[in-house]
Amino acid sequence: MKYALGIDIGGTEIKIALINRSGVIKELRRVPHNTPSDAKTVIDGLVNLIISLLKSAGMSIRDLEGIGVASAGDIDYKKGIVRFTPNFGWRNVPIKKYFNRYFKIPIVTDNDANAASWAAYCIEFKQKIDNLICVALGTGVGGGLILNRKIFHGATGTAGEIGHIVIHPGGEKCNCGNYGCVEVYIGAKYGYIVNTAKKEILSGRKSIITELINNDFSILTPKIITMAAKQNDSLAIEVLKKAGSELGIALANVVNLLNPEAIVLAGGISKSGKYILDPVKETIKKCAFKTPAEKVKVVISKLQDKLGVIGAGCLILYPY
Amino acid sequence: MKYALGIDIGGTEIKIALINRSGVIKELRRVPHNTPSDAKTVIDGLVNLIISLLKSAGMSIRDLEGIGVASAGDIDYKKGIVRFTPNFGWRNVPIKKYFNRYFKIPIVTDNDANAASWAAYCIEFKQKIDNLICVALGTGVGGGLILNRKIFHGATGTAGEIGHIVIHPGGEKCNCGNYGCVEVYIGAKYGYIVNTAKKEILSGRKSIITELINNDFSILTPKIITMAAKQNDSLAIEVLKKAGSELGIALANVVNLLNPEAIVLAGGISKSGKYILDPVKETIKKCAFKTPAEKVKVVISKLQDKLGVIGAGCLILYPY
Repeated sequence: MKYALGIDIGGTEIKIALINRSGVIKELRRVPHNTPSDAKTVIDGLVNLIISLLKSAGMSIRDLEGIGVASAGDIDYKKGIVRFTPNFGWRNVPIKKYFNRYFKIPIVTDNDANAASWAAYCIEFKQKIDNLICVALGTGVGGGLILNRKIFHGATGTAGEIGHIVIHPGGEKCNCGNYGCVEVYIGAKYGYIVNTAKKEILSGRKSIITELINNDFSILTPKIITMAAKQNDSLAIEVLKKAGSELGIALANVVNLLNPEAIVLAGGISKSGKYILDPVKETIKKCAFKTPAEKVKVVISKLQDKLGVIGAGCLILYPY
Repeated sequence: MKYALGIDIGGTEIKIALINRSGVIKELRRVPHNTPSDAKTVIDGLVNLIISLLKSAGMSIRDLEGIGVASAGDIDYKKGIVRFTPNFGWRNVPIKKYFNRYFKIPIVTDNDANAASWAAYCIEFKQKIDNLICVALGTGVGGGLILNRKIFHGATGTAGEIGHIVIHPGGEKCNCGNYGCVEVYIGAKYGYIVNTAKKEILSGRKSIITELINNDFSILTPKIITMAAKQNDSLAIEVLKKAGSELGIALANVVNLLNPEAIVLAGGISKSGKYILDPVKETIKKCAFKTPAEKVKVVISKLQDKLGVIGAGCLILYPY
């Protein structure tokens, strides 16, 4: 059995896992990532963690096909460098070189959304299609494109910014500096979903959300709204439907432009299941051309928050 | 010198040309295309035209590398079939088979926007970049994607529908059934540009357009508005700027999503030159991410309405 080590470096947590070609995790470790951080110190810490993880798995570095590193930010995947990750305070970090000092095995690096889409493609769709779009719904909205069976990077490696498809020109302000990006309406950090629900309730709308949060709006999250939706709360269902429709508008554009076989939703609000998925599908059906809209399969990832670390391993196990 | 025969089948005209690898046209014929039409009759007519064209060029069919056919509509490029072109009334026309009955040389078929983008890539950019987007601005708005040095078709061959990127959800109705597609604001058939100018003038706005059309709005075209802009007419400049900005919103999405090295504008309103190009560039700069926005080169095609027929020849001369 071939194994790779996958590393997913996120803004709050770093995951390390032993992955096989079926995407199965043999060992997984999670460590907090306090950002901004010093890249060299972080990597030195990871090296010790890797050694300990291999030991507890009864393996040695020679049993690995290589190490795949998925990181947030702007990555030079050809050179194995993290060019810029504002959240970490990292600039021009030679990831590949750092790891190669300790481990003389193949090291590859790519953007976390790209790694996630590669996992969705290699593991969830078993490389049986040609084109897949992965949408990482989290604090922001990331995206990865698999086009013609390969990760598509574009000219400078920034392709896939699905979160910054403008769906309402002149709309709400986005952190990117633009207005009306889909991320504003569905990214957790903007609180649009929560605020919409809050506003309706404060203006007198009845909802079991009020009970669930015991009238304390500071604890209201999309998760709680989903709980309310599952109890058939009409406001909760409506709010999630609106969010799903907004995402659907952006994805209808993607469907018309790229005509993919699959769109995989992962992270955050995708955990609301059908309450998000159904309006996404309906909007694509309504807004995109018939043939590509009928062709595309829109699903919620089963691997969810492990997509990144499994994808990191897949960067090694499924050369691209 | 290698030559191919390019055929561009449009809704009002068919172009046939002898093309070399530099994209130079040695012989060109244009014939009207009265649609709806009977595909077999049209192709039989083209066969005679090809024979006459070769004769006048002092060449025989054996001097050709092959025949490339670009057609509007939904094309199965792998099988050489026009699946559906509503404007022509064509359904499942085996183009390759029809031509192969007469000419035993390679025949390839692709969508006209794809062929145009292939010409822009092979001839205008000499294959020196990896990713190029071609936007065909005509009665509608078509698009072709060159990704990783190949025409990108997507799952069912419909990729590249740039005209149907929604820029104003719930906006003006588009022929595709959806609302607020960019095509509505810049495609000639919707008359948005002309109508905006007309409305302003009728509401009392001074403009030399009034003189240019001798007060007859039925003859007002984007070309006349461009003439007025060249004479520094503020309304004309404003109207074209608005149209360019609308296109820019859609293209900023494309830049964020695909991070291409080049965007080539061709046809119709692109002939307004800087009056359209400048606002397109400004909007991309304003709306897209810094790195991909700085990377992308937005230009107006020099080959213009010959892009399709040259691209058809390139389908043969530059295998893809």
